[in-house]
Amino acid sequence: MQSTSNKSTDISEFGEFGLIARLTEGFRISNTETKKGIGDDAAVISPRNRQMVVTTDLLLEGVHFNLMYTPLKHLGYKAVVVNLSDVYAMNAEPRQVTVSIGVSEKFKVEHLESLYEGIKLACEHYGVDLVGGDTSASYTGMVISVTAIGRAAREELVYRNGASEHDVICVSGDLGGAYMGLQILKRENKLFQENAGFQPDLARYEYIVGRQLKPEARRDIIQLLKEKRIRPTSMIDVSDGLSSDLLHLCHNSDTGCRIYQDKIPIDQETASAAEEMQIEPLVTALNGGEDYELLFTVSTKDMDKLTGVSQIRPIGFMTRKTEGRRMVTNAGAEVDLQAQGWNAFGKINGKG
Amino acid sequence: MQSTSNKSTDISEFGEFGLIARLTEGFRISNTETKKGIGDDAAVISPRNRQMVVTTDLLLEGVHFNLMYTPLKHLGYKAVVVNLSDVYAMNAEPRQVTVSIGVSEKFKVEHLESLYEGIKLACEHYGVDLVGGDTSASYTGMVISVTAIGRAAREELVYRNGASEHDVICVSGDLGGAYMGLQILKRENKLFQENAGFQPDLARYEYIVGRQLKPEARRDIIQLLKEKRIRPTSMIDVSDGLSSDLLHLCHNSDTGCRIYQDKIPIDQETASAAEEMQIEPLVTALNGGEDYELLFTVSTKDMDKLTGVSQIRPIGFMTRKTEGRRMVTNAGAEVDLQAQGWNAFGKINGKG
Repeated sequence: MQSTSNKSTDISEFGEFGLIARLTEGFRISNTETKKGIGDDAAVISPRNRQMVVTTDLLLEGVHFNLMYTPLKHLGYKAVVVNLSDVYAMNAEPRQVTVSIGVSEKFKVEHLESLYEGIKLACEHYGVDLVGGDTSASYTGMVISVTAIGRAAREELVYRNGASEHDVICVSGDLGGAYMGLQILKRENKLFQENAGFQPDLARYEYIVGRQLKPEARRDIIQLLKEKRIRPTSMIDVSDGLSSDLLHLCHNSDTGCRIYQDKIPIDQETASAAEEMQIEPLVTALNGGEDYELLFTVSTKDMDKLTGVSQIRPIGFMTRKTEGRRMVTNAGAEVDLQAQGWNAFGKINGKG
Repeated sequence: MQSTSNKSTDISEFGEFGLIARLTEGFRISNTETKKGIGDDAAVISPRNRQMVVTTDLLLEGVHFNLMYTPLKHLGYKAVVVNLSDVYAMNAEPRQVTVSIGVSEKFKVEHLESLYEGIKLACEHYGVDLVGGDTSASYTGMVISVTAIGRAAREELVYRNGASEHDVICVSGDLGGAYMGLQILKRENKLFQENAGFQPDLARYEYIVGRQLKPEARRDIIQLLKEKRIRPTSMIDVSDGLSSDLLHLCHNSDTGCRIYQDKIPIDQETASAAEEMQIEPLVTALNGGEDYELLFTVSTKDMDKLTGVSQIRPIGFMTRKTEGRRMVTNAGAEVDLQAQGWNAFGKINGKG
């Protein structure tokens, strides 16, 4: 648990309301449709003929994050970003968030200030207003619950169920980095725990560790698609892994798919780290999750508009459902896609 | 932990999505403005020229509820209701909720079904749609995070800051019951733990135990005020205790107040239980909290309209700020109101 200063103030020195006031004092309302933020029974938003989208995520210590290697400021940033990513995946603009936290007494006010610094950075960077939340003691681990609210014109919204046969499957950025970043953090943390004086060397893994600790939501991709006048036919963010999230699009759109192994974007640093740790790089992309890239389908007639756009890669196409949901390997074999991504209930695949 | 059946199914038998599907299969969308509920990256709501209100609450095992004496079905019901209460306190209509839960492996699917049965009952009773949420493993206690969304015409919304000098302070129902219900539950639970074969006798305390375990949000009061064409000048729900919540209205409205001890509504069962446990009944009303009654102010010109309305009691009036925030006791003394209600961070006054 890092804090930005050496001061140490017990949370119990503040009442709930004093604490919330202290933590949120630097936050400003930046959107005119936010009529009332913190300070009443509820926030008030004026949607002005837009549709509203609402999404929520619960992050639990030990399950979704480990404070041994997660700076609180990064955690606050990420907790907001993962929700904004869901709003962008609807092709909507995030505008408000609520953040509730539960913390045990081991946390000091300064720790919470670091957490809220990260929340504030994310709010400022993405232009969203913090409009509410709850702050509570916790007898167990840290709990963070974020709800994000966004808006869009009705005709702009993109659901998971709009893809058709022949639509091209595209993905932004690269995949597997966040997962490999986590593996590196866990390895270095283990060595640190076991060896007095061990200094983790993360410099070689800066990109992938950053992907894990401080992911960004792809607002830039949404803006780019708007500029190019491309409305995806279906979209989802890659939080559970390419395989699992693509299966969601297929399931909701009632289609099959073919993707090509050699088209799946994997960064060189991800691939090196994977090889170093004897993990198949492809597996990190298919099943790793937490990349928060956008996975979407576009009509073939829109593909010309994506010429020369390096941030977006076509990786395959939708088929009829009866043709199955498969990846074509580099050797030319077809393998069924399987949902083996993040599942906090089933097999926990090393993300804890 | 009670369950409605004797079956015992491990949560790990379901993936996250299978589990959510199972838990939410009986839920129906009842509001036409809910365009998309569960099943995409975010829910979609069409507000139709109304203002939207958003409120959120985090409930943690051991802090906000104790599963030793809280049936899961009641817990699910209450988790929704406490959020709806905040929406009503804005003079708005709740329409949607999201519910996220974190549970450890000791819970079986049947336990979660009981919890969701309560959530469903609350949704049906209050006409709100479950539109999203998150289900996660927890390595520690149970976590429930609810966000409620409501709507109102702009001119209908009632904030905490609208009260003026001379406005009459009113409260619905009666106060202190939920707190005394909790004291009884804790006493009986302690006896049960200490004495083999002890059978808790809660029949004598049915009303107050019900106030604690299965509170209702006062939709009826909001409807009544609408019918009578009374728009409160300020309003809050009594979640922290009369004293603390009235101080919020005064603080936000920049007023003082006088309330009268003999006007504060306390049910006979609350008073008897308090005396039995050597607690001053007045203290339960002032500082107990969790009653989820509505505390509001109305202009004196509207008071005629409340003649004969037994569910709403005038308990005092707003004054200039310089006159202080005080209660006039039965003996005629004036005492300062103090915020001593529920505070999960400061002094925990027996609510854990």
